[in-house]
Amino acid sequence: MSNLTRFGISMDTTLLEAFDQLTQKAGYQSRSEAIRDLVRDYLVQSQWHDPQAAVIGTITLVYDHHSGDVEHQLTHLQHQHIGHICATTHVHLDEHNCLEVIIVKGTSETVRSLADHLIAHHGVKHGELVCTTTGANLH
Amino acid sequence: MSNLTRFGISMDTTLLEAFDQLTQKAGYQSRSEAIRDLVRDYLVQSQWHDPQAAVIGTITLVYDHHSGDVEHQLTHLQHQHIGHICATTHVHLDEHNCLEVIIVKGTSETVRSLADHLIAHHGVKHGELVCTTTGANLH
Amino acid sequence: MSNLTRFGISMDTTLLEAFDQLTQKAGYQSRSEAIRDLVRDYLVQSQWHDPQAAVIGTITLVYDHHSGDVEHQLTHLQHQHIGHICATTHVHLDEHNCLEVIIVKGTSETVRSLADHLIAHHGVKHGELVCTTTGANLH
Amino acid sequence: MSNLTRFGISMDTTLLEAFDQLTQKAGYQSRSEAIRDLVRDYLVQSQWHDPQAAVIGTITLVYDHHSGDVEHQLTHLQHQHIGHICATTHVHLDEHNCLEVIIVKGTSETVRSLADHLIAHHGVKHGELVCTTTGANLH
Repeated sequence: MSNLTRFGISMDTTLLEAFDQLTQKAGYQSRSEAIRDLVRDYLVQSQWHDPQAAVIGTITLVYDHHSGDVEHQLTHLQHQHIGHICATTHVHLDEHNCLEVIIVKGTSETVRSLADHLIAHHGVKHGELVCTTTGANLH
Repeated sequence: MSNLTRFGISMDTTLLEAFDQLTQKAGYQSRSEAIRDLVRDYLVQSQWHDPQAAVIGTITLVYDHHSGDVEHQLTHLQHQHIGHICATTHVHLDEHNCLEVIIVKGTSETVRSLADHLIAHHGVKHGELVCTTTGANLH
Repeated sequence: MSNLTRFGISMDTTLLEAFDQLTQKAGYQSRSEAIRDLVRDYLVQSQWHDPQAAVIGTITLVYDHHSGDVEHQLTHLQHQHIGHICATTHVHLDEHNCLEVIIVKGTSETVRSLADHLIAHHGVKHGELVCTTTGANLH
Repeated sequence: MSNLTRFGISMDTTLLEAFDQLTQKAGYQSRSEAIRDLVRDYLVQSQWHDPQAAVIGTITLVYDHHSGDVEHQLTHLQHQHIGHICATTHVHLDEHNCLEVIIVKGTSETVRSLADHLIAHHGVKHGELVCTTTGANLH
């Protein structure tokens, strides 16, 4: 069970009004929730600065499955890192294009390097790594 | 079938050597492939500046499924946007934490707004949107 | 004179401790100050989404002043936008390299476009735009 | 004197046309120049991953000079790092707000830490670090 701490903040009224307006537009139901999200985001970003931190990343790839044997090779590369890969989702975008999302667990160094290699693959049109978190220390 | 254009580039030798070294480390098998990736990345980024451009996004969410009825509400929110959602992958990270990746198709405006609302949801610890592409105009 | 609003936030104790640790390392003297900075940063980022918002940008350029007449042309380009440029600082980095920081005021659309054109200039090795704020509505 | 290497690239014609269109809009006068900029940007980004790399950063601060003795303290902090600071530019934005751009030379670790401390300072409304380069190895 997690413990909550309550604390007070003072903020310029104009600043707070502008913040409330933005976060309501984004769908936040409370000011506290919006501030907790900013804090968690700041922590996740800093976690990734440590190459040995345990993180989760999602790697998004767009590729043309008619382009050489890219599909086969991406699968092969993933099998070589089987211990780090949680799941892979494949979506058929159109006759040619596929989108694949690979969820990877490991040190930030390992996840970054695997992302680099997948994105660098011939036939991959676009790739991005999202640096997120196992959630374990992030309440 | 796609047409290829061949063209020449001149680059300072020292700059080129540094680039070759970096891209080899990342796993690129040719200099052309690495340059094509930089070009495609530049195009994808600019696409997202147009709110009406047809794009693909992947939304990564980390949440604690014990936190209120977050799981139920995220599912509900996704069903309201069923026409835009291609697929959802769910990974059980530990006893508490879940990671969900939602693949969304639509205008960049729609995808951004849906991402905002999912990330703003109470119980979602961390969320990120990847802006990628349908691949359709990106060879 | 500005008005302050005081309000309470509840946050998981572990999350708060991790945040306090990070912000102390960064030199923040209070938790409130760190949170206000996250809020202001979030507001500044959103301001830049509106092409007509009045903003301030700083454009950093690195160039070799021996490369063609780049210095002359950058000066010429700045004079054409004299109404938007607040100040320019020039630093001689070594025998060849110069760093120039140009402080620009205008709509976000204007500032972005001027930054694009300066960075695209032949001879400019590296350029970056910082999107900041006039501070006027940001207390 | 620098040596040039010429090399050929093949690119899908549609991709190349889209790239040419974007770079012309941004003001690039040749395709080679635009590609060199993408390459240099990629190199500068990777340089900053090494905490010991010699870099240049520009730190942009917006603050209200009526807020406590922020001006005095920022000056004091800069004098403590006099060996790393190349130049400081100050612009009076309005009756209250100042913008200061500080150009800093050092290892990426040193520059980041100084930026953190300046931005964390009470009274600083917004701050950003631009990670650029001494230009020395970037032709």
